[in-house]
Amino acid sequence: MDQERLLRELSEFLRIPSVSTLPAHNQDCRAAAEWVAAELRRLGCRDVQFLGSDTHPVVSGKGPDVPGAPTLIIYGHYDVQPPDPLAEWTNPPFEPTIRDGKIYGRGAADDKGQVFCLLKAIAASPRPPINFRFLIEGEEEHGSKVLFDLLKREPQRVRADVVIVADMSYVAPGWPAVYTTLRGLCYAEITVRTSRTDLHSGEYGGAAPNAHEELCRLLTRLKGEDGKINIPGFYTPVKRPSKAELAAWKKLPFTEKDFLEKRVQGKALVGLKKYSVLERLWALPTFEIHGILGGFTGEGAKTVIPAEATAKVSMRLVPNQKLATVERQLAAAVKRFAPKHVTATVRFLHGADPAQINVDRPAFKLLGEAFKEVTGRASVPARAGGSIPVVPALASAGAPVILTGIGLPDDRLHAPNEKLDLKQLWDGIEVFRRFYDLLGGAGRM
Amino acid sequence: MDQERLLRELSEFLRIPSVSTLPAHNQDCRAAAEWVAAELRRLGCRDVQFLGSDTHPVVSGKGPDVPGAPTLIIYGHYDVQPPDPLAEWTNPPFEPTIRDGKIYGRGAADDKGQVFCLLKAIAASPRPPINFRFLIEGEEEHGSKVLFDLLKREPQRVRADVVIVADMSYVAPGWPAVYTTLRGLCYAEITVRTSRTDLHSGEYGGAAPNAHEELCRLLTRLKGEDGKINIPGFYTPVKRPSKAELAAWKKLPFTEKDFLEKRVQGKALVGLKKYSVLERLWALPTFEIHGILGGFTGEGAKTVIPAEATAKVSMRLVPNQKLATVERQLAAAVKRFAPKHVTATVRFLHGADPAQINVDRPAFKLLGEAFKEVTGRASVPARAGGSIPVVPALASAGAPVILTGIGLPDDRLHAPNEKLDLKQLWDGIEVFRRFYDLLGGAGRM
Repeated sequence: MDQERLLRELSEFLRIPSVSTLPAHNQDCRAAAEWVAAELRRLGCRDVQFLGSDTHPVVSGKGPDVPGAPTLIIYGHYDVQPPDPLAEWTNPPFEPTIRDGKIYGRGAADDKGQVFCLLKAIAASPRPPINFRFLIEGEEEHGSKVLFDLLKREPQRVRADVVIVADMSYVAPGWPAVYTTLRGLCYAEITVRTSRTDLHSGEYGGAAPNAHEELCRLLTRLKGEDGKINIPGFYTPVKRPSKAELAAWKKLPFTEKDFLEKRVQGKALVGLKKYSVLERLWALPTFEIHGILGGFTGEGAKTVIPAEATAKVSMRLVPNQKLATVERQLAAAVKRFAPKHVTATVRFLHGADPAQINVDRPAFKLLGEAFKEVTGRASVPARAGGSIPVVPALASAGAPVILTGIGLPDDRLHAPNEKLDLKQLWDGIEVFRRFYDLLGGAGRM
Repeated sequence: MDQERLLRELSEFLRIPSVSTLPAHNQDCRAAAEWVAAELRRLGCRDVQFLGSDTHPVVSGKGPDVPGAPTLIIYGHYDVQPPDPLAEWTNPPFEPTIRDGKIYGRGAADDKGQVFCLLKAIAASPRPPINFRFLIEGEEEHGSKVLFDLLKREPQRVRADVVIVADMSYVAPGWPAVYTTLRGLCYAEITVRTSRTDLHSGEYGGAAPNAHEELCRLLTRLKGEDGKINIPGFYTPVKRPSKAELAAWKKLPFTEKDFLEKRVQGKALVGLKKYSVLERLWALPTFEIHGILGGFTGEGAKTVIPAEATAKVSMRLVPNQKLATVERQLAAAVKRFAPKHVTATVRFLHGADPAQINVDRPAFKLLGEAFKEVTGRASVPARAGGSIPVVPALASAGAPVILTGIGLPDDRLHAPNEKLDLKQLWDGIEVFRRFYDLLGGAGRM
């Protein structure tokens, strides 16, 4: 592999600030789509198309026809999370930089670096006997609306022998994985209004309600100090993993101490103490506050009683929970817990149902072999705490969806100083190259 | 009075966005100081000086010498509060606009419009027999540091027969007032840190602490749903007003219903229910959240677990509370209420001790007469919920500090659509003109 050229090309991709959630970056999202399209054309694809949106299109394409060979859909996304807080980045987020064998930049692992691996593995192989189909989207971090709409209109686009999604990581260094569940997501804004306009805290303080205070109280009612989410009905459909699965997790190279000290880098873990940390991360739903808007947040001092406060929150959902039900439950809980003197509203931004994947189907074994050949260890089944909203739709035509990845748990996805280890990058290209060969050799499934 | 010219000149003053708390407006603060200096020179002042700061100077000056006449210090401030939320203004905050007999703009009432009255009342009088001294500062909304330092260095600057501060309002339309107390202020930022960097809510949600959640919980511990501030020792020095004072308040044209419906414009009032609303506003301390920083507050969705969250908060203090003590109490309470797994810190931005004023001294009677002549009613004693940090320092040489004003309670200080009624403006100029005559006639005090 010409590593120097590959790093130059990856850096070019990472340099595009394709933040899908911020309208100011619409043209950057388009530029990232064009980068992907050019790459597909270089691989000899026909019918490279931008579908569903001018600014955040799904980039689709077909590899050269190989009659009788299996069809493999490669899914990925070229959009990235916002980079803030900017001050905490060592290098600017869109100026990819290599340090200590890692490439740092927004999207290095989530998901540009992994899309890059999947594509470069094709180029690295002498014409793998596979009918490639590509669905590379630009809204994974923002609800995947364009792709959802496309697959609703044209469900045949996910007819294939196998779908591969490389947007995940190893469970630990040296431990590749395939994932059996993804948590779903319910992203909402909870707004509390207490008066018509902001008020002077000297003139009104002591008698007028404060929107931030009411919002804080409401949020602490929705989730208690013990980590329990107090939304009525929320936990009802949640099932514990089987004893066998819980036992398998104990064999993984995961310790709560390392998780706290090396990854969270905080003073203590929190959450529902009677469950293991892996169970909290993989098999239980969450409620997180992402930020609070309103009032005065500028430099210096302003003595205002805010009239309105909005919390951006999201819940991760686990198998058997339904997005539509959780939305209703949250709206009802906000209504129930907000005091009568405030006007509380909930706006739902986007979401995803949780996903379950049967990893006993043959294609998973082939990927396991590829991992074993390249890294010395076959992929192990694990669960995922994150969400890829479109996975259930990708599985809707019956093809097995292989959820895997070449990242590491400390890649700092969605956070400052996101990175990808170069060893993972080079191994990843090799693994996927080998997987394509094995899959092609196995024939249609 | 040439009202058209006066409105043109006031608009010119209001057009300067002299927001003292935002460094981006430093030059605007300087421009407002220059507007004041030019006005003083037009009044025939000698020694017009910019003291203590290039950008936020105290503008000082001396009126023409009148041997044997009383010395009156006129205090005011040319700085204003930040204008946000901008979207809620009908006209842009620094484009003063007259509608329905009111002038709208940031600073219309607090305090540019009132400084304007005090100065134009001098011009309106044929050489009042008074030795005027001016101290017009540019940091009242940001802690008054420059003026505090000046008065510490040169305490003789507040030697006078009387000090007048017109930064207040009537207690109700037609009810002018002089104020017997001002609440103090303790402005702080409470920061909670839970991990080294922001974390991905999919990978970490369920086990990693969330800075915003911890901050919300901490804030609800510092102040309960019943309105009680749970900072140990906080209420200890607070004394209830005398029965006579409470009885006098009942005669004021103030109803809790009007306060809620016409001023707060919310669904209900809050606070310590066993005290009247006026007592909550005037004689009890407060704890208010002004805004919360950290995490993701941009458009759209970002699923991050914030590593750090900061609340801007302030407490209004009442007589017998001490700023220095309250700072210690808040820091101790934050330490006590923050769980062990977070790092909680408090940074104090600025503050002021509460002030008490004896309104039985002769100068107050003269102002009362002036009000009575012009408006038909003499000023009544009342308390103030707001803070003017420098009032205790202005009183330090023994001169009576008359705290009064020509605003109305619905002027929306610190809020969108701040205004001043033009009737109040014209009456105000007349009242102060008459006060200068009466004071000059009464001789030295």
